[in-house]
Amino acid sequence: MYKQYLEHNQKVKDVESAIALMHWDMETYMPEGGANVKSRQIGTLSSMHHEMATSSEYANLLQKLQDDNSLNPNQKKNVELSLNDFNRKNKLPAKFVAEMTKASSEGFMLWQKANKENNFSIFSDQLEKIVNLCKQAADYYGYEGHIYNGLLEEYEPGTTKEEVDVIFKDVKSELLPLLKDIQAKGEIDNSFLKGKFDCDKQWDFGIDLLKQMGYDFKHGRQDKAHHPFSISFGSEDVRVTTRVVEDDIMNMVGSCIHEGGHGLYEQGFSADAYGLPESQAISYGLHESMSRFWENNIGLSKEYWEHNFPKMQKYFPTQLGNIEFSNFYKAINKVSPSLVRTVSDEITYHFHIMVRYEIEKGLLEGSLKVKDLPEFWNAHYKDYLGVDVPSDQQGVLQDVHWSHGSIGYFPTYSLGSFYAAQWHHSIKKAFPDFDGKVKKGELGFIKNWLQENIYQYGRLKSAKELCTDITGEPLNFKYFLDYAKNKYLG
Amino acid sequence: MYKQYLEHNQKVKDVESAIALMHWDMETYMPEGGANVKSRQIGTLSSMHHEMATSSEYANLLQKLQDDNSLNPNQKKNVELSLNDFNRKNKLPAKFVAEMTKASSEGFMLWQKANKENNFSIFSDQLEKIVNLCKQAADYYGYEGHIYNGLLEEYEPGTTKEEVDVIFKDVKSELLPLLKDIQAKGEIDNSFLKGKFDCDKQWDFGIDLLKQMGYDFKHGRQDKAHHPFSISFGSEDVRVTTRVVEDDIMNMVGSCIHEGGHGLYEQGFSADAYGLPESQAISYGLHESMSRFWENNIGLSKEYWEHNFPKMQKYFPTQLGNIEFSNFYKAINKVSPSLVRTVSDEITYHFHIMVRYEIEKGLLEGSLKVKDLPEFWNAHYKDYLGVDVPSDQQGVLQDVHWSHGSIGYFPTYSLGSFYAAQWHHSIKKAFPDFDGKVKKGELGFIKNWLQENIYQYGRLKSAKELCTDITGEPLNFKYFLDYAKNKYLG
Repeated sequence: MYKQYLEHNQKVKDVESAIALMHWDMETYMPEGGANVKSRQIGTLSSMHHEMATSSEYANLLQKLQDDNSLNPNQKKNVELSLNDFNRKNKLPAKFVAEMTKASSEGFMLWQKANKENNFSIFSDQLEKIVNLCKQAADYYGYEGHIYNGLLEEYEPGTTKEEVDVIFKDVKSELLPLLKDIQAKGEIDNSFLKGKFDCDKQWDFGIDLLKQMGYDFKHGRQDKAHHPFSISFGSEDVRVTTRVVEDDIMNMVGSCIHEGGHGLYEQGFSADAYGLPESQAISYGLHESMSRFWENNIGLSKEYWEHNFPKMQKYFPTQLGNIEFSNFYKAINKVSPSLVRTVSDEITYHFHIMVRYEIEKGLLEGSLKVKDLPEFWNAHYKDYLGVDVPSDQQGVLQDVHWSHGSIGYFPTYSLGSFYAAQWHHSIKKAFPDFDGKVKKGELGFIKNWLQENIYQYGRLKSAKELCTDITGEPLNFKYFLDYAKNKYLG
Repeated sequence: MYKQYLEHNQKVKDVESAIALMHWDMETYMPEGGANVKSRQIGTLSSMHHEMATSSEYANLLQKLQDDNSLNPNQKKNVELSLNDFNRKNKLPAKFVAEMTKASSEGFMLWQKANKENNFSIFSDQLEKIVNLCKQAADYYGYEGHIYNGLLEEYEPGTTKEEVDVIFKDVKSELLPLLKDIQAKGEIDNSFLKGKFDCDKQWDFGIDLLKQMGYDFKHGRQDKAHHPFSISFGSEDVRVTTRVVEDDIMNMVGSCIHEGGHGLYEQGFSADAYGLPESQAISYGLHESMSRFWENNIGLSKEYWEHNFPKMQKYFPTQLGNIEFSNFYKAINKVSPSLVRTVSDEITYHFHIMVRYEIEKGLLEGSLKVKDLPEFWNAHYKDYLGVDVPSDQQGVLQDVHWSHGSIGYFPTYSLGSFYAAQWHHSIKKAFPDFDGKVKKGELGFIKNWLQENIYQYGRLKSAKELCTDITGEPLNFKYFLDYAKNKYLG
């Protein structure tokens, strides 16, 4: 019977992977005129996927397997997670799902238009509709405590709004003063990072960085995409994409290492557990911790660049040959409040998230109205980041997420950074010569540690279990704070 | 009810396109280690595709539609063709299909090994098994006259072995003497085509040639592949691939134009008829006629190169700057009997096919035994082409087709060339200034003519109907013979 369960899930994953390949193709190589036909193909396969994953035969199988005493603990856990997924998925009536899908796709188009024309009112009615649907979804799912929990569970299973509040309270009380202290240290010149950097050379340098991390090119590849992403067709074929911009080399570096981190996680899942929860990511926050750990904790560290800056200078002698290492290191770590989340530094980033998180809670509770969003947004950007928002385009309209119906997603970005700091602390404790190895460009031990402690489990451990097993306690913001203080004021 | 039929076929095509994309990916960008997981994904989707295409609900729908008098002639024709396809597909029992699939996949592996080790005996037992299965398939399908017809129908519907025999009788009696006459004209030096040609420049030149043909890059793209092919995900996204070899520029040129010809055909199908016979190719031979017409009749013509040779010289001034046009033209049209089909010229090519066709007939009739194949092969290569076959690797083991269970496929390659000559004759008659336009690089009118006369119909006309409508008669070898005589002896 378990075999039947396994085969069913493998087939579902096969269809999922075909859909994933079509998405990959859309973002990388598809000719412009292929978009319509590709969309309908994705639609058809998505329906088939949904039917397979929610069939009553599968439900019966899962029910029976629950009482199967011949399963080993690992198998039991897989079945338990599949059953949870199944039940959650089936809480939404088909009619509601169709409504949500329609609202999101209309929402996306209206958001694009609103963004382009810098006019929030084009999007606001639809956003109101989406917020109401999200509230309904939370009700269908059911939740304890705050309504936010009904949605957060989708992105960060096992973590509650009440726990996230505790963390953001610290962000507010601890990180805001730290930001002031960092700013008090004076301006940093990073203009030399905005020169002209040949795109082909950037590409080669990026591949070099991916190889150093241990990203496996036998089971993956890198391509260019406008919005970088990583995608898996099973752990034996996990691809990453990056963006190469001539006058912004750190954009490429950051996206290579970030997506490489996501990719390593997916490559690290057991190929034998293809299709099972055991070869899936725990949560959005955990996935993000895998990318941010590499991108920030490793990829913005002094030790990392002690090895890589001389390399980078060889790639770009005219642009960087005369730059001193200490200035380079300061420049790539310049902390500077700004308007746009996606290009913000590792400290101010969390204020961007905090504003969004507060808005989401307010919208769901009803304490904040959609029409008041721009005002709320601008006031809080002034308050937390000290910046004046010149337009909704660069303000409340900058992110796509809400238009897709993704409410409850944003905090996982910050959780990712905070988990990453906690892993960082643990691995440094496990390897007293951590800095020495990184300085020499020896990063293999990091991938091995992640494989052993995180990748191999897939979803067999929850985020909380995993975090406690590795670090001795659940997620704790103090690790990030210590990391930041030590790095920026130490 | 027709709407239901349409939607069913669109969905089947959606799945087919997802499978096609996975194949494209395998041949272009897939990392080496992704092959196993991709194969299983293709397997799962292929089963789903088969189930959809052969479901009893669909059968009932087709039956009912047959008697639906509200259909217009175009709709009636689509339904009729779908019903034929359905009935033919359902003639093979599922168990037999599974057996055939297994035998082919084992056959492919054994053929690879036999080819690599130059040892026919590794492959011969499996080939015998495959031949027997093909005989069974012919019996399941049913046929009139020769058993070969049971299989040929799969590749060249509506054309019989008896008709193909008539053509190859002419090949033997007319083309063999012509070959002798051509050879009597003396040796041609084509060594300058084997110099070093920068691969990036070759690529650019190839793209240029595709654009000239009217290949639509908004609805297509070219990539590199070891074995060039074209593939469609619906007429709005049709891709081609080419091979670039530094010391063999005409290899790239030939494969670009050849695959471009296939691609134009698929791009020319009605997007509204997505999923219907109306947007499918008539037969393998017709598809091949679309590629060979461009590759040989246009792409090896004097007029074509009067426009393109000066361009090519600009791309490669060191290699070709001092070559006289007349020598270039002779070199690219060098006729020279050789061992390997895929690199042979447009005249001797058909002797390669004739040997294979005779072998296939013999095997199916039982007049030829698998164990006697090498001897038969070598004797006939000596007889028709005057060459001594030094090894089975360069002889009977050179093609993959039989290992896949494709018996009855080879003659369609020759039919393609012969149809192409017949189209060529008609279009030249329709455009008295044909040569003048081609000389100026104005090829748009050719694509338009093909669109109007061939592409737009998809399968609505059979090969015979199409050929008669355009040229006034069914396929006739004399057009190819005239073309060849005129070109090589004229």
